[in-house]
Amino acid sequence: MRKAIGIDLGGTFIKAALVDQEGAILYKEEAPTLAERGPDDILLRIEQMIRDIAAKHALQISDLSGLGIAIPGFIDDATGVADEVVNIGWRNVAVREPLHARLGIHVAMENDANAAALGEAWAGAGRGRRFALCVTLGTGVGGGVVIDGKVLRGANTMAGEIGHMVMVPGGAPCNCGHHGCLETISSATGVVRLAREGLARAQAAGESSALAAVQDLTAAAVFAAAEAGDVLANAVVDEAIETLAWGLGTAANVVNPEVIVVGGGMSRAGERLFAPLREAFPRYALRRVALAATIVPATLGNDAGVVGAARLAL
Amino acid sequence: MRKAIGIDLGGTFIKAALVDQEGAILYKEEAPTLAERGPDDILLRIEQMIRDIAAKHALQISDLSGLGIAIPGFIDDATGVADEVVNIGWRNVAVREPLHARLGIHVAMENDANAAALGEAWAGAGRGRRFALCVTLGTGVGGGVVIDGKVLRGANTMAGEIGHMVMVPGGAPCNCGHHGCLETISSATGVVRLAREGLARAQAAGESSALAAVQDLTAAAVFAAAEAGDVLANAVVDEAIETLAWGLGTAANVVNPEVIVVGGGMSRAGERLFAPLREAFPRYALRRVALAATIVPATLGNDAGVVGAARLAL
Repeated sequence: MRKAIGIDLGGTFIKAALVDQEGAILYKEEAPTLAERGPDDILLRIEQMIRDIAAKHALQISDLSGLGIAIPGFIDDATGVADEVVNIGWRNVAVREPLHARLGIHVAMENDANAAALGEAWAGAGRGRRFALCVTLGTGVGGGVVIDGKVLRGANTMAGEIGHMVMVPGGAPCNCGHHGCLETISSATGVVRLAREGLARAQAAGESSALAAVQDLTAAAVFAAAEAGDVLANAVVDEAIETLAWGLGTAANVVNPEVIVVGGGMSRAGERLFAPLREAFPRYALRRVALAATIVPATLGNDAGVVGAARLAL
Repeated sequence: MRKAIGIDLGGTFIKAALVDQEGAILYKEEAPTLAERGPDDILLRIEQMIRDIAAKHALQISDLSGLGIAIPGFIDDATGVADEVVNIGWRNVAVREPLHARLGIHVAMENDANAAALGEAWAGAGRGRRFALCVTLGTGVGGGVVIDGKVLRGANTMAGEIGHMVMVPGGAPCNCGHHGCLETISSATGVVRLAREGLARAQAAGESSALAAVQDLTAAAVFAAAEAGDVLANAVVDEAIETLAWGLGTAANVVNPEVIVVGGGMSRAGERLFAPLREAFPRYALRRVALAATIVPATLGNDAGVVGAARLAL
């Protein structure tokens, strides 16, 4: 059976996995990114991780179908260069050529959201479906569109950026420079912002909320307070989910997916997220679009990126 | 050079064209649809048009690469059946099999908006571009996404329905059953609605507008009054265009097109439409998405459907 190595380069950790052609992870490991040491050092350590994984499995590097690497920023696939990777301070870093030169194998690249989408579509919750829309609810809202097993990249690898669909013109400022993007509302960060704003209003109005007592206000804390019946927390969660349904309905009208895979930290809220999301989705997706699309939780968790990266090389 | 026939089945006319493999129309004709005579009669007349075109060009039917047919409704490509075509009253009408049986050639189907998008992307304003988003501003707002020369169909041929992206939840009712869809604002119908509503408000406030004197309020009349300096007409046109920029920016964040082709009757407004549209688009599309996308007028006009239909068979 063919095997490839998938690398998920993150701001904090580099994850590496040996993946077979069925999408099963045979082995995985991770190491700190140490971004401050610069790109050459990171690429060298990626090479070492790959040699180490091969050696542990009695494989020659040449036995591998290749190497796929997920990068948390903008890439130029034509040149094999990472144009801009804010999290680790990269600008115009050649990735494919140095790795190919050192290892002598096929090297494929993808941005991390697209790689995670590909992983879920190929070997996770979207397995067996031809058209998948994948969304990750974390600090931001990442997205990816997978068609017939291939990531839709678009003109310059920006396709699937559903977190930056503007939902509320003039709304809360977004890191992208615009206002009111989906991720200002339906991400973990968005939920915390809505909760803080709601708390300020509630306190001004002399209303109480369990959230006022929470030391470290996180999206998980807001979901927990909502489950416990707090009115403000439920209003915040409802707004985040209704807006997510709107955004997914909008994107679904464009790509008409068979499956919408929802992952990321916030997806762990389970039915408190999925039940109202499924209920609201048909208010925004065309009837036939809604009929075609099943909304499901992601199943690969943090492994989606390495699996998708490996898929690129298989 | 290979040739195919493209059919564009409309509510009023059936258009047919002989198209070569470069996308050039060698000949075209049209005939009334006469929907009231039923599907068998229409399919028979389509067959006759094809035989007639072949005979006029000294071609055997078997010399053709095939036949493509654009249908103004929902199709099931797997079965070759038109599921629902409201305009001509069809429900579950087999199209591919009867035409194939009668003519002995390959028959391809597509819905009309997708066929028009394919035509523009292949042989019109999107020629030479890999990723095209095409939009038609007419009675409604039609759309299609073309990737590497192929229409993105999605799970059940509904992809590209950007006219039904909900822009304003709870807004004006749309034919689709939802409220506030893009086509309730940025179509010819939407412009007329906004103008009527604006006129009512202006009259209630004792303000004048040149639109009050217009007998037959059309989108063209509103654009003309705007060009002539009417304040209300300009406000209406600006709202329709700003919302269109929002919708196109939203869809572009999902598919990352190289080119956005804008056609349909309203696109004849020229720079009064395109200049503010290009100006507003980057307020909604991510910076890199906006940098990658050129917004251009469609060039095939009413021929986009037959050209795209023929492309399906080539």
